[in-house]
Amino acid sequence: MTGNNKQRHLVIFQPSGGRGYIDKGKTIKEASQQLGVDIESICGGRATCGKCKIKVEEGFFEKYGIDSQREHLSPMEEGERQLLTKHEEQSGYRLACVARIYGDVLVSVPEESRAGRQIIRKAITETAIDLRPAVRKYYAEVPPATIDNPLGDWERLEAELNRRFNLSNLVVDYQVLLGLQKVMRQGNWKVTASVWMDREVIKVEPGFVERGYGLAVDIGTTTVAGYLCDLMSGEIVATDSIMNPQVTYGEDVMSRITYAITNKEGLRRMNRAIINGLNQIAGRAARQACTERQSILDMVIVGNTCMHHLFLAIDPAYLGQAPFTPSIHHSLDIKTRDLGLNISAGAYVHVLPIEARFIGADNVAVLIAEEPYNQDEIVLIIDIGTNAELVLGNRDKLFSASCAAGPAFEGANIKYGMRAIPGTIERVEIDPDSKEVRFKVIGKTDWNTDSEAIGAKGICGSGIVDAIAQMFMVGILQKNGRFNVGLETPRLRVTEEGPEFVIAWAYETSIDQDITICQTDVRAVQLAKGAMYAGAKLMMRHLDIARLDKVIFTGAFGNYISKDSAMLIGLSPDCALENVYAVGNAAGDGARIALLNVDKRREANEIARQVEYIELTTEPDFETEFMQAMYFPHLKDPFPHLKQISNKEGRS
Amino acid sequence: MTGNNKQRHLVIFQPSGGRGYIDKGKTIKEASQQLGVDIESICGGRATCGKCKIKVEEGFFEKYGIDSQREHLSPMEEGERQLLTKHEEQSGYRLACVARIYGDVLVSVPEESRAGRQIIRKAITETAIDLRPAVRKYYAEVPPATIDNPLGDWERLEAELNRRFNLSNLVVDYQVLLGLQKVMRQGNWKVTASVWMDREVIKVEPGFVERGYGLAVDIGTTTVAGYLCDLMSGEIVATDSIMNPQVTYGEDVMSRITYAITNKEGLRRMNRAIINGLNQIAGRAARQACTERQSILDMVIVGNTCMHHLFLAIDPAYLGQAPFTPSIHHSLDIKTRDLGLNISAGAYVHVLPIEARFIGADNVAVLIAEEPYNQDEIVLIIDIGTNAELVLGNRDKLFSASCAAGPAFEGANIKYGMRAIPGTIERVEIDPDSKEVRFKVIGKTDWNTDSEAIGAKGICGSGIVDAIAQMFMVGILQKNGRFNVGLETPRLRVTEEGPEFVIAWAYETSIDQDITICQTDVRAVQLAKGAMYAGAKLMMRHLDIARLDKVIFTGAFGNYISKDSAMLIGLSPDCALENVYAVGNAAGDGARIALLNVDKRREANEIARQVEYIELTTEPDFETEFMQAMYFPHLKDPFPHLKQISNKEGRS
Repeated sequence: MTGNNKQRHLVIFQPSGGRGYIDKGKTIKEASQQLGVDIESICGGRATCGKCKIKVEEGFFEKYGIDSQREHLSPMEEGERQLLTKHEEQSGYRLACVARIYGDVLVSVPEESRAGRQIIRKAITETAIDLRPAVRKYYAEVPPATIDNPLGDWERLEAELNRRFNLSNLVVDYQVLLGLQKVMRQGNWKVTASVWMDREVIKVEPGFVERGYGLAVDIGTTTVAGYLCDLMSGEIVATDSIMNPQVTYGEDVMSRITYAITNKEGLRRMNRAIINGLNQIAGRAARQACTERQSILDMVIVGNTCMHHLFLAIDPAYLGQAPFTPSIHHSLDIKTRDLGLNISAGAYVHVLPIEARFIGADNVAVLIAEEPYNQDEIVLIIDIGTNAELVLGNRDKLFSASCAAGPAFEGANIKYGMRAIPGTIERVEIDPDSKEVRFKVIGKTDWNTDSEAIGAKGICGSGIVDAIAQMFMVGILQKNGRFNVGLETPRLRVTEEGPEFVIAWAYETSIDQDITICQTDVRAVQLAKGAMYAGAKLMMRHLDIARLDKVIFTGAFGNYISKDSAMLIGLSPDCALENVYAVGNAAGDGARIALLNVDKRREANEIARQVEYIELTTEPDFETEFMQAMYFPHLKDPFPHLKQISNKEGRS
Repeated sequence: MTGNNKQRHLVIFQPSGGRGYIDKGKTIKEASQQLGVDIESICGGRATCGKCKIKVEEGFFEKYGIDSQREHLSPMEEGERQLLTKHEEQSGYRLACVARIYGDVLVSVPEESRAGRQIIRKAITETAIDLRPAVRKYYAEVPPATIDNPLGDWERLEAELNRRFNLSNLVVDYQVLLGLQKVMRQGNWKVTASVWMDREVIKVEPGFVERGYGLAVDIGTTTVAGYLCDLMSGEIVATDSIMNPQVTYGEDVMSRITYAITNKEGLRRMNRAIINGLNQIAGRAARQACTERQSILDMVIVGNTCMHHLFLAIDPAYLGQAPFTPSIHHSLDIKTRDLGLNISAGAYVHVLPIEARFIGADNVAVLIAEEPYNQDEIVLIIDIGTNAELVLGNRDKLFSASCAAGPAFEGANIKYGMRAIPGTIERVEIDPDSKEVRFKVIGKTDWNTDSEAIGAKGICGSGIVDAIAQMFMVGILQKNGRFNVGLETPRLRVTEEGPEFVIAWAYETSIDQDITICQTDVRAVQLAKGAMYAGAKLMMRHLDIARLDKVIFTGAFGNYISKDSAMLIGLSPDCALENVYAVGNAAGDGARIALLNVDKRREANEIARQVEYIELTTEPDFETEFMQAMYFPHLKDPFPHLKQISNKEGRS
């Protein structure tokens, strides 16, 4: 353990603990490779990217009586200094690809320099996702062609990528080849190549270009949500969502299938609509991130089976008739240009696999995000959308089912309902005595009671669930969903269309109208939650279980719903509240995970074939269960854990 | 060796000699797989394709005292009988996938049933080419989807292809996926899949479809020649050639590069022109073969470096300036739809690799067709085109060079010159005494002297070489290319533009004009042959050799040139006439070989990187050698072997 070997020196890496004797004069980067320690590198050791920063730790060897310090590395070079901040320089930071070993050293590899570092840690599953994107960037300094060695541009680039990064058998995308000559000369033979799956060069840019982006999109029947991620860090750099432009052709899955069947141009129109929508999201997200759409190098798409088919321009007719066969289950990698998607010309789009019937790639995405197949506890996942998808089970067995919930939770078919955009009401509280309402609007930090000029323009999914739950809690709604019209409060009134309850007065809005919840709104929520509850209960019977260990609510409604409100109205059978989670859009998370980790794409294909589908509508008890589940929280089933909420809120 | 084992029987295959004991009840096909004998099968043993015909040999075992006959196989089935001719049935033919082994049998596998059978046997190299196309057809009967097993269309097809043909990890082309549902239902779940490189399904057709075609194209600077091949048999089923439509933009390679540089739309225009031309060839060849362009499942393209770049729409500017770097050397596989080629929607085009400078994929094709790299003898190959390419060497060392020969041998820049199409003069003989001319026209079997109504409309490359050689032989032309105007014959006359010699009188033509060879024509041939001869001589100096073992003339001029005439005018340095070959279009042969055998595609990439390029124009002696080589056959060099011709023709 002492460094008295004249030709070799002890090098220890933190936090991995990798250690060994390394030949004098080798770089820290070379030592790390020899000892199996991952240090990030894009430029392949040319001191250009500054990604491989490490810190030389002082004092460590001193306690062993060894004289160890920064001088045990080669002196700092000018190019290196330019890539370090003054503070980093003073703190002992160096570039691993430059600093050479002259003596024993202890080296810390900071989080951001670790290749394949963790980027997504889901609170629920405690699963860490490593960063292993399909597209990686490599910087290459290519020798110019000479009369003596007039090898082709591609051959010289390929040889350099092979030599520096050990990338063999590479092929080049045709569109990239078309621009290769110009790009290599523009960059004076210094270029950055983006390589897909270690086998195809899908972009070449002049000079050193660090940034590269990927777009994960969840195509919902009503809402399309996009997440633009930095492929190098895994971070979300922009999000954007739009109403699915296919809504014009039908509100739900069945009506779109009908439109495709009955209109000669129906399929083409709906396909063009979603492709245009995706191009819009790509453009806007890129602008948000101060980049251009051409720097989006990868894309992942999830969606239910019908959205999947319409996105791919595959006829959905057979999805609507027995035996409900999809065209393909398996994931697909398709050139974005073949689909008319306007991102980097050579990029692929990865479409996650689908499960069965309408349970599609969105549910597969939920699965790889939440990983119920890696858990012992029985978990119920409800992905709330126009079509709700349910998953129940654990590592031993997983069932899935779907039900037509309608788009109420996405704010559609609700009088003042809206997508979750800035200005919509996302939280509602009603005072049990005065029946006065407090609400919070997306984009504002205060509740309306703290600032009157609140300018609400509608109410989004989480706000609707809150409103109905609170209205039930304080007695405005009865168990069967009817308004308690006898209640004395100016907010409850009966119009020609029936009773309604005012959430926001006109002066609190930007639309100059009272924002209300009416009887039709309540009915829409009852139908949706009744279907989900009944589905969950029938699935529990299939799995032969009486209680749930965990419940996860998810959905592309933009914001987290309140799990208390969800349980209060009976969105699912009873469960201990500390084991109920509302996780935002897990399908979007899964899409993002697949974007950032290719191993999860493989896992997605496996799990998609393992889940067993249950057709709910043909279950003999479905109708009865559905009717009973329309009550708040249920006609008969006990909800022992709801006591927790009443206690919390100080009511019995 | 006796068949007294009750459960197993001796099966012997001819001509391979494979033999072994096989379980009773197995099919002949199963036996062949067990014993490693190749028998063709498209339908995967469903008695649908009739490809696996074998013949049961009588009498063989009898001489060993063994009672062997047709009854040692299961009785003939009705489906089997329908696929055999009456004669075949009587001769003992059976389908290997149906006939089961009940006793010892000797089985002959006829040529046409052998999988991977030989298809091209080149007279010169004696190399046999096996049939191993990139695209193969597989017939599958897919189980229909049911409510209990509602697997996707693709998954059921994939599983069947895997089960029957052991094709694993298949992917499906996006365009194929778009039509998959319809095709599978049209075929009532019986379909034929075309699989590229054992990994991608590029077409699916309803029912059993035996035929599949491939198109090999040699894009010459002046002439584009296409060969449509049956991928199952390797046979050429149609040929078609056109004038390269880029000729409008420049006659030779350099002028096209200039056009691309000086016109903003130049590259795009020339690319569109050749793509349209190729689509025209594909359509006409398909019609010739009574099929449609969509049944063309594969395509191979060869051409010089400039044609290669223009075909791919890659800017050729850098080819025209030092260090003359191409964009890419390596072969490419590109979706034909990405290039605008209109054949089967999922098909790939394979572009052979290029060597150096203007020596492109066409010369690589010549190499894999003639295989000088597998020979001991020193061989000179001259590929005669607008740009002539020369290869010299053997297995130890190969040099290549190119020279601008001009399109004279393709009939261009010759007063009455034409591409080799029906109606053009392809052979010329001149009587040494009377100076009377005999000629033969493409498409007619007789010489003009046997039938006066000959209707010649021009003269093609081989006719021009013949005419000049004969004119020199009989003294009409002097050694320096000048007309011997003193000669007394009505065919030799001096016009305002100089002297000319009449090959065909107006009444022998369909153009109502005398077809003549004039002084400019002779000069064009002298320039072309002088350049080639000088190039060959300088290459011989590089290789340090004084004589050639073999000479091969090749070119896309449509028809074989006469090797005697070629040597008479001095197209190459002297060589024993029995070792001189004129092989038609070897580049086209090579393209066809690459179309039919994927191993040769790999070989092409290897050999393209091994050949050493010589730049002729910068050789100090080039000008001198060129001047001397413009003489017939040469100013100074001896041609000892020309005596053979004089003797043969009965003249000294």
